[in-house]
Amino acid sequence: MQIQGRHYRTIWEKKDEPGVVQIINQCRLPHSLEILDLVSVEDFRQAIADMQIRGAGLIGATAAYGMVAAVRNAPRHDAEAFMRDAAQTLIKTRPTAVNLSWAIQQQLEALSRCRSQNEWVDVALQVARKIANDDASACKRIGEHTLPLIQAIAARKKGEPVNILTHCNAGWLAFVDYGSATAGIYAAYNAGIPVHVWVDETRPRNQGASLTAWELGEQGVSHHLIADNTGGYLMQHGMVDLVIVGADRVTRRGDVANKIGTYLKALAAKDNQVPFYVALPASSFDLSMADGIAEIPVEERDAEEVRLMTGMQSDGTLASVRICPETTPACNYGFDVTPARLITGLICEHGICAANEAEISTL
Amino acid sequence: MQIQGRHYRTIWEKKDEPGVVQIINQCRLPHSLEILDLVSVEDFRQAIADMQIRGAGLIGATAAYGMVAAVRNAPRHDAEAFMRDAAQTLIKTRPTAVNLSWAIQQQLEALSRCRSQNEWVDVALQVARKIANDDASACKRIGEHTLPLIQAIAARKKGEPVNILTHCNAGWLAFVDYGSATAGIYAAYNAGIPVHVWVDETRPRNQGASLTAWELGEQGVSHHLIADNTGGYLMQHGMVDLVIVGADRVTRRGDVANKIGTYLKALAAKDNQVPFYVALPASSFDLSMADGIAEIPVEERDAEEVRLMTGMQSDGTLASVRICPETTPACNYGFDVTPARLITGLICEHGICAANEAEISTL
Repeated sequence: MQIQGRHYRTIWEKKDEPGVVQIINQCRLPHSLEILDLVSVEDFRQAIADMQIRGAGLIGATAAYGMVAAVRNAPRHDAEAFMRDAAQTLIKTRPTAVNLSWAIQQQLEALSRCRSQNEWVDVALQVARKIANDDASACKRIGEHTLPLIQAIAARKKGEPVNILTHCNAGWLAFVDYGSATAGIYAAYNAGIPVHVWVDETRPRNQGASLTAWELGEQGVSHHLIADNTGGYLMQHGMVDLVIVGADRVTRRGDVANKIGTYLKALAAKDNQVPFYVALPASSFDLSMADGIAEIPVEERDAEEVRLMTGMQSDGTLASVRICPETTPACNYGFDVTPARLITGLICEHGICAANEAEISTL
Repeated sequence: MQIQGRHYRTIWEKKDEPGVVQIINQCRLPHSLEILDLVSVEDFRQAIADMQIRGAGLIGATAAYGMVAAVRNAPRHDAEAFMRDAAQTLIKTRPTAVNLSWAIQQQLEALSRCRSQNEWVDVALQVARKIANDDASACKRIGEHTLPLIQAIAARKKGEPVNILTHCNAGWLAFVDYGSATAGIYAAYNAGIPVHVWVDETRPRNQGASLTAWELGEQGVSHHLIADNTGGYLMQHGMVDLVIVGADRVTRRGDVANKIGTYLKALAAKDNQVPFYVALPASSFDLSMADGIAEIPVEERDAEEVRLMTGMQSDGTLASVRICPETTPACNYGFDVTPARLITGLICEHGICAANEAEISTL
């Protein structure tokens, strides 16, 4: 997608420097565009754990490149143990997104098929490139499948903008390119359909305010930032035509783990007959799980993310401010699970299906 | 209630200085305790409009004292017009809370019964004192009616804390004393029942983080601050026994206007069979209205409240930070309406009733 009119992906191999992978440091957005070099396994671990990169698809691609770093930097005499340690280190960074363990599993299986350790770097690099490219092309196809939904609403609205609400960032910044929830929005925008996006700010880390608002602005898509509390009001007043969110993990029954607060928007959509879609690459399905609320592990993050808020002061410097009394304790669950019964449809690269085991199993 | 161990109300007449009313400047909480003198009608208008004071009950009491300022400062030759202008000025500050126009109506009716303008100041002062005292005693009785609900849950939980979720600040800071949603929590705490409060931070103005967390801390009540997105997760996992919120206006059918986001919590409570109560003084009923979503006016506030966040830096200075790109537009609706069908019961000074016209009409 575009940043200041130039094409970027969210992760790429640095030109002419084998072994160096580059990412956009999303912790610095929207206030500055900082490109980071990742070389060691520790660089990759930190990028994922500190959320310099985040989002299901991008976590998967980054972990895949992290395994390339592992085999590249493995000591010859103990390469197998080093590589397996690295896999464990990377898997432990974020528990909720299934793409992380999925990508590492892809690497471990490919490496186990090598006849000699000499092949490791080349094989791991091929796997990482394939995961990144497949992620981008899956997102592109998600957009193609979403477009007719938006077109149908646009036809009904006769020139009035189609109002789409999204939560968190399931934009191109959460993937390698295009995004999942945003892919259809960009496709509609490019097709000349008037779209307007309600952007949930998505506390505590404000991925909506800092990432989704930023990427929509860079592409030129009309949008308004709203507090997470606002969606119910908008839906009660007919101001939302469609909700599209992403997913970190979807069970075989169609329960969706996504950024905390998604479930509340799904309830409001159901209560107001607003279609509620979840867009995801098929790699985010976890068919080993059935009941999302009981089975999907939900990450509990540092309470400081709730107590503190970071942004830019009027003088252009960044600052963190505490919004509560000094002694107030806080609690920070990262995800919630939206039960399948609240979901109108799941959109993946293979098409749109209902959120139930019968349809998911045919994908 | 207590601040640093000393008893305060939220509004009081300054000792030995007739004509001066004092308030706690809630815009400065939780970071500093600033007491403001209000003298002119403009002081009162600003206190309400800028949310130096806020909350249904306290807005009513402040408006009542604002009318005392109006009659005290009215020019003798044109007192009637000055007083009526002041009433209009005050009414226009905040559209959603019915207590504002109710309090001013009380004053206008009392003043219209005066035989001469010489009586105005005394009469207006009596009305303002009565409104403030009635607000405090109504809240105290709300607490007495809420206590048995909490006791019943505590009995079932056999010593485990009763987990209560609240949204925004319907605490003593929103009234003259005790609060509405918090009155029962304080009553339970004083009765030795283990209570724990989940405090929604309540974006965009963070009244939960800055006011509710602060007042619970000052009274010694156990609590955790959470992002507004979190309540659904907590309810899905059995971590909320009871939701109690306040109200800015309740229609005769039992629809409740309260701080934006309340509706989303009511949906989650219903979906998880968690009792959802609304606590309010009877002055917050507006029997002239039936359908809350269609009829209650919802204030749209400055978009900067969404784009900017104010808090304390680690060096102890206050700062405002922008959390989105400089050019991102935002939208800021202040309230939403929770339909009566989602409400377990309404708690007012007269007791607990169901949220329907039959029961509300018997109050």
